Amino acid sequence: MKICQVEKPLVATHRIAGLEHRHLQVVLDGSSQLVAVDAIGCTPGDWVICVGSSAAREAAGSKEYPSDLTIVGIIDYWEEGA
Amino acid sequence: MKICQVEKPLVATHRIAGLEHRHLQVVLDGSSQLVAVDAIGCTPGDWVICVGSSAAREAAGSKEYPSDLTIVGIIDYWEEGA
Amino acid sequence: MKICQVEKPLVATHRIAGLEHRHLQVVLDGSSQLVAVDAIGCTPGDWVICVGSSAAREAAGSKEYPSDLTIVGIIDYWEEGA
Amino acid sequence: MKICQVEKPLVATHRIAGLEHRHLQVVLDGSSQLVAVDAIGCTPGDWVICVGSSAAREAAGSKEYPSDLTIVGIIDYWEEGA
Amino acid sequence: MKICQVEKPLVATHRIAGLEHRHLQVVLDGSSQLVAVDAIGCTPGDWVICVGSSAAREAAGSKEYPSDLTIVGIIDYWEEGA
Repeated sequence: MKICQVEKPLVATHRIAGLEHRHLQVVLDGSSQLVAVDAIGCTPGDWVICVGSSAAREAAGSKEYPSDLTIVGIIDYWEEGA
Repeated sequence: MKICQVEKPLVATHRIAGLEHRHLQVVLDGSSQLVAVDAIGCTPGDWVICVGSSAAREAAGSKEYPSDLTIVGIIDYWEEGA
Repeated sequence: MKICQVEKPLVATHRIAGLEHRHLQVVLDGSSQLVAVDAIGCTPGDWVICVGSSAAREAAGSKEYPSDLTIVGIIDYWEEGA
Repeated sequence: MKICQVEKPLVATHRIAGLEHRHLQVVLDGSSQLVAVDAIGCTPGDWVICVGSSAAREAAGSKEYPSDLTIVGIIDYWEEGA
Repeated sequence: MKICQVEKPLVATHRIAGLEHRHLQVVLDGSSQLVAVDAIGCTPGDWVICVGSSAAREAAGSKEYPSDLTIVGIIDYWEEGA
């Protein structure tokens, strides 16, 4: 899993039906911006654990959900680069 | 998921039957060119969300569809590098 | 999917039974050499679409085929870096 | 599989139910910090084998477990860069 | 698939039961060291084809085997950088 920081919510009104109305977050993986499905309820600035690969689907709630990156936990304490 | 910009459609007349006649788009992931199945109906210049991994298959419409990158949403507003 | 150029066939006489006698091609992904299963019938120099992830298995013809990169189409016209 | 060194345990009290109470470790893959599910019982400093992709789920104990990186073995002897 | 060179066997006595007693090899992917399950019977110095993603499981012998990189063939003739 990756350690990412939540940057901001992402709005994409025009989306495939399979994505439903789940919240999407822009997360920073180092300096790269990725999009993750928020299965937790995060706030910008949170340090989170993101799961990828096929496990992202289950983590988002169902084997059919089309996610390849899902936020599965908020890290209690994290200091960048420490 | 990745944040990409649609560059142009890709024409590949000689393709495996499994790809059907679905539209393929060249998308930019940073400075890298990738090919994504267009499940939305995009226009060059659009900023889009692309899903990879095994989720790209479901997102393209069926578990058997041979995609590893599918456009699943158009971002309402995106400013590069912001 | 990746945009690659076919470099040359790859000969591997000693292989697991599951690979069968399918043709393998060395393809260039930028400057990296990868090996792809040829599901199309390519010629060195062709610009092709390669699918990875679990979709490479279906694209090679069956869910049990052990491929993680399969050539699924030949691009009609491609100019490098254009 | 990747060769990683265990850095420290990771505490994430707020997590999805699917992660259960399994131990998570911060591991170093070269200079990158990743999070792995500990299926072995490791100690900081251990050199370990981490499996990714969909195999990480099975390795964590069940096909439904949402892991994309699982520690599956401790290397008997490893000298970095040797 | 990747083109790798076999460096040496890897000994990990303490491993999850699912890995069984299969031989593991340290392989070089360019300058990166990875661990692959040896489904062929390789010798250090061999140039081999390694399959990743979910196909590595089937290639290792069963859909339940926890591999994300499996050696599936020995290349007949390979000259590095040629």
